[in-house]
Amino acid sequence: MDGGKAIVYREKNNITKDIANGTAVNIVAMVFGNMGDDSATGVVFTRNGHNGKKEMEGEYLINAQGEDVVAGVRTGKSIELLKKDMPKLYKELSIACKKLEKHFKEPQDIEFTIEQGKFYLLQTRTAKMSAGALVKTSVDMVREKLIDKNRALTRIPAQQLEALLHRTMDESKIKDFKQLAKGIAASPGAASGIVVFDVNKAIELGNTGKKIILVRKETKPEDVPAFFSSEGILTSLGGKSSHAAIVSRGMGKPCIVGCPELKIDYDKNIGMANGMTIKEGDTITIDGSEGTVFIGQIPTIEPKVTKDFEQILDWSQKIKTLGIRANADTPDGAVLARKFGAKGIGLCRTERMFNGSDRINLFVEMIMAENIEERSKILKKLGQLQKSDFIEILKAMEGYEVTIRLLDPPLHEFLPNPEELVEKIQKLKAIGSANEADQAEIVLKRAKELAEINPMMGHRGVRVGITYPEIYEMQIRAVFEALVELTKKKVKAHPQIMIPQISSIAELNHIKKTYDIIKKETEKKHKMKLKINFGTMIEVVRAALTAEELASTAEFFSFGTNDLTQGTFSFSREDVEGKFLPEYMEKELLERNPFQSIDVTGVGSLIKMGIAAGRGVRPNMEVGICGEHGGDPSSIKFCHGEGLTYVSASPHRIPIAIVAAAQAAIEQPKKVRKSRK
Amino acid sequence: MDGGKAIVYREKNNITKDIANGTAVNIVAMVFGNMGDDSATGVVFTRNGHNGKKEMEGEYLINAQGEDVVAGVRTGKSIELLKKDMPKLYKELSIACKKLEKHFKEPQDIEFTIEQGKFYLLQTRTAKMSAGALVKTSVDMVREKLIDKNRALTRIPAQQLEALLHRTMDESKIKDFKQLAKGIAASPGAASGIVVFDVNKAIELGNTGKKIILVRKETKPEDVPAFFSSEGILTSLGGKSSHAAIVSRGMGKPCIVGCPELKIDYDKNIGMANGMTIKEGDTITIDGSEGTVFIGQIPTIEPKVTKDFEQILDWSQKIKTLGIRANADTPDGAVLARKFGAKGIGLCRTERMFNGSDRINLFVEMIMAENIEERSKILKKLGQLQKSDFIEILKAMEGYEVTIRLLDPPLHEFLPNPEELVEKIQKLKAIGSANEADQAEIVLKRAKELAEINPMMGHRGVRVGITYPEIYEMQIRAVFEALVELTKKKVKAHPQIMIPQISSIAELNHIKKTYDIIKKETEKKHKMKLKINFGTMIEVVRAALTAEELASTAEFFSFGTNDLTQGTFSFSREDVEGKFLPEYMEKELLERNPFQSIDVTGVGSLIKMGIAAGRGVRPNMEVGICGEHGGDPSSIKFCHGEGLTYVSASPHRIPIAIVAAAQAAIEQPKKVRKSRK
Repeated sequence: MDGGKAIVYREKNNITKDIANGTAVNIVAMVFGNMGDDSATGVVFTRNGHNGKKEMEGEYLINAQGEDVVAGVRTGKSIELLKKDMPKLYKELSIACKKLEKHFKEPQDIEFTIEQGKFYLLQTRTAKMSAGALVKTSVDMVREKLIDKNRALTRIPAQQLEALLHRTMDESKIKDFKQLAKGIAASPGAASGIVVFDVNKAIELGNTGKKIILVRKETKPEDVPAFFSSEGILTSLGGKSSHAAIVSRGMGKPCIVGCPELKIDYDKNIGMANGMTIKEGDTITIDGSEGTVFIGQIPTIEPKVTKDFEQILDWSQKIKTLGIRANADTPDGAVLARKFGAKGIGLCRTERMFNGSDRINLFVEMIMAENIEERSKILKKLGQLQKSDFIEILKAMEGYEVTIRLLDPPLHEFLPNPEELVEKIQKLKAIGSANEADQAEIVLKRAKELAEINPMMGHRGVRVGITYPEIYEMQIRAVFEALVELTKKKVKAHPQIMIPQISSIAELNHIKKTYDIIKKETEKKHKMKLKINFGTMIEVVRAALTAEELASTAEFFSFGTNDLTQGTFSFSREDVEGKFLPEYMEKELLERNPFQSIDVTGVGSLIKMGIAAGRGVRPNMEVGICGEHGGDPSSIKFCHGEGLTYVSASPHRIPIAIVAAAQAAIEQPKKVRKSRK
Repeated sequence: MDGGKAIVYREKNNITKDIANGTAVNIVAMVFGNMGDDSATGVVFTRNGHNGKKEMEGEYLINAQGEDVVAGVRTGKSIELLKKDMPKLYKELSIACKKLEKHFKEPQDIEFTIEQGKFYLLQTRTAKMSAGALVKTSVDMVREKLIDKNRALTRIPAQQLEALLHRTMDESKIKDFKQLAKGIAASPGAASGIVVFDVNKAIELGNTGKKIILVRKETKPEDVPAFFSSEGILTSLGGKSSHAAIVSRGMGKPCIVGCPELKIDYDKNIGMANGMTIKEGDTITIDGSEGTVFIGQIPTIEPKVTKDFEQILDWSQKIKTLGIRANADTPDGAVLARKFGAKGIGLCRTERMFNGSDRINLFVEMIMAENIEERSKILKKLGQLQKSDFIEILKAMEGYEVTIRLLDPPLHEFLPNPEELVEKIQKLKAIGSANEADQAEIVLKRAKELAEINPMMGHRGVRVGITYPEIYEMQIRAVFEALVELTKKKVKAHPQIMIPQISSIAELNHIKKTYDIIKKETEKKHKMKLKINFGTMIEVVRAALTAEELASTAEFFSFGTNDLTQGTFSFSREDVEGKFLPEYMEKELLERNPFQSIDVTGVGSLIKMGIAAGRGVRPNMEVGICGEHGGDPSSIKFCHGEGLTYVSASPHRIPIAIVAAAQAAIEQPKKVRKSRK
């Protein structure tokens, strides 16, 4: 069969051409539901597809053919009414439902026809259900002893659980609203609020309790305080790994990026798309799961972590062998991650800590410092702030590993972009603020000096750690000092220090020397032994290729699969997702977006090499991944299969990761997980 | 010994700390050259160190100590005069020289002392010689049967031959001139000319016969016509792989890039560095081998390819087994490469062909085209131009393979940068040219649309070939049409089509389909069978990792080691060379610049994987490299060792590559080279 509907069905269900080049047709005898009032036809779910309740759900039509019900030509009657219309046949239907469920061990979606009083089953198949219904029916069917726990877990597509963890738009209301634009769904969940283009205005209004949607061309670290004040974020530029996308996902705030039809004019404080205009103060609703932006306030529905869902998570925790840690950068994030079931933090990005409004200016001052003395003075203040953050995060994760990654991004990311500065300077000059204009000129000069042609592959990570040694010194010291303080208070803290962008053992050993000196100094000063594991990211291709060398110094590895995917494909995520990647998917040149699901052939082979080489040197080495793939079910299966110690995911994806890890353990039970302990 | 001189010596000779942590001291009995007029001391080269002539060269002092000669405290007498001063001792010295040469089989650098009529030899060592002297003495010593041809070739550091292939500054005159600045030596050779900042002015003045040095912040493809009109190029920005650097090297024009002390003001038509100012029309001299810029015209010395050098190249050609091809993009380049000994073109960059002043505008029009019809019309014209270029290049390389790489760079590289456009628009508006300003606004909009955050990993190469299929179609057709024309004229042309930036077999097969269709069409139209090999670059890490799959379609591989090095290290060459790489070298975090010499551990392991996988599928597969490493002697040794079919280098580095390949064959004679034939 190759009709339009068949093709769409195959596409939607990812039945690609290598699996099937058509859909088969079976020919059977016809029965008629339209042979009078003793005939009928209907569809029924053996359990409720929306909420999972154990009740038949469906509709039927007297004297009608199946297509009439399915196509909705006539409005069907609720199946409950059949009890009165045709009591005997209703009973036959009920018995059939039970029998089929017992046989298939799944709620069924049934089509039936009654021909002159005789009941015929036309078709039965596993019922398609909402995430909530899947969870409830899983738990119920275990209680009914229809299925076991393994089956209960594996029948739930882990990805679908996302819907249970975020606020959603009330679908029944959407039709009353106008869609303004559609962008890339960057962080799930729905949110309504008033449009604000200016970052400071967003903070100011947010503080008065107003619900804000921050609308920008793009965002930078200095804008992060405004994220805290906003319900959701919408940017016209960027891809799934743009600053706005990653920060929003980390905070669990809805976010849409890469919305090219939306033209923003900061001067006029307006945005335009598809002939409509939004201005500051207008209410919009964004759905970060769909990428859709609507004008007006669409009612939203709160997520519920039901008792049944908790039961599923509890079973999963007991079955899974892969560790689940969180990507969390703030004490709040750590608390949330632990609540969601994370056992440790696999990635604590220290640069995110500079995002608070109390410290971003200090950080900018540090970058602007003209000499090392001035810089060191500011770094001391920043060190104090980092130390207190580390203390709170380590406390929240007491008993578990917290892997702290030293500064990663290029420095210029912390300065405003040159184009914006030029504009600002012109405005300052126009209003006669010569002094401020001069100040801005200095920032512009520095921003231009630091700007790079390909910043993703530029002066960042350990490269900055080597050329500005005082930054990593400050960070390493802050970790040690935090551990001292917690040890004195008998808190069981397990910080680990991780170096980003390592491409060679020489770089790693260079930083290790600094680490050793600071360790010795701190131990001497406080008269105590301090154990902080020292490890490396494997996110540069060369690190995977030279993992054996790296393992001589690194006590643990963590694969940064975002960057590793970029390096392996030479795809800049920020650029390709908005440009050729959609066309690649359409033309079937890529099966999946490699930034969402690990490319097993390419990136996967580097991960395999890295694990084998690392564990060749340190047999029980802790090896994890901390890219965003850590929250993707199929990547989690890969990680389980390869014997990784853990995956690290955004707090809001922890439950998904837990279920996916349990599923992997059920599917591939024999893999023995290497663990550091 | 750890004195300042010892340390500098070790550093200069690359004696790193893992080789020696000091310099040993031998203690011997003292003889005295200062015991009267029957005593003397001197130094002598057994052959002339500058030109290699078979004559003693050196100086001596009567009644003096060795240090007096070496330190230049007193001016020595030419060694010839010793014949008259002390005939017997002169004879003894001559005999010693001959004996030592015979023993060491190398010209010697000797220190001697005469103590009261008795001749003492203090020290002898291999004489340090200029490239020219090395060449001449090699040939002479073979004729004298002192050494064999293998020894004659291996004693010449291939890298040093560069000095024989480019014009140099007259060193004796340099001291009379002021050095303006120092940048990155991007393309060797010395050149003098008048400073011109404006590209059009450079073309205009160049056409009148004026010698020009083009001075820019950076250059773009549209500036290339000005390269042809200039003696040399100087840019204040960019690294060794910046546009200016690569184009200059290809043309063999001296070039200096990344000269941050030089501040250029296009508006005022001046440049400033170290307190000095150059304005349009001032004469400067640049030395692209050293990176130095001088004010004024320093006399330069022409390179000579002597008979002896030709002899060395001839011996090398016979001994080497590795193929040497050229990176050449124009008919002139092909002719030059063949003259220098290249047997084929390993990399013909089709985008360079758009650089001519007659076609760059057409190309920009093509990018700006708003629909496929308009674009196709322009592509047809471009196709005619490409076809005629292909014909000329294939003719120049008759009998040898010419590997034509389809369009690689991102499209926005062909548009002016947005900042410059904004400036231009403002100026146009100021002078009331509203129409032209509007035109420029359209270009600006398109330039912004195409701009990328990390263009090196963005929408380029095969990705553009897939999203704008009409471009590759035009190029493939032009190659086929050129082959048809040449076949009709009985010219033995061997074009090969190569696809850049391939990361998966799906991409390669997608383009192969187009190739197959065009091949079939052309064969049918002209009623002849046409053989054009279809292959892929291996420059994306994933291509190396999936080489086995690629080899099912690709008939040949060519490693693009520039890009492969970038992907393996996550180092953007344009950014890192000016930023942290120098510090990395200083801190010994990298032994060598991986962009100059192949990183054997990382990039090398990917090359090995790629070769093994490719030849596993096609045992005699042609495998080459076409990155700039193709001209680097130590990389050439690696390539020989790994059994590559050929290396491809810039025309001006072909002789170096030939000698290096011969050296590799002598050092590792047993490797059997796989060849397609």
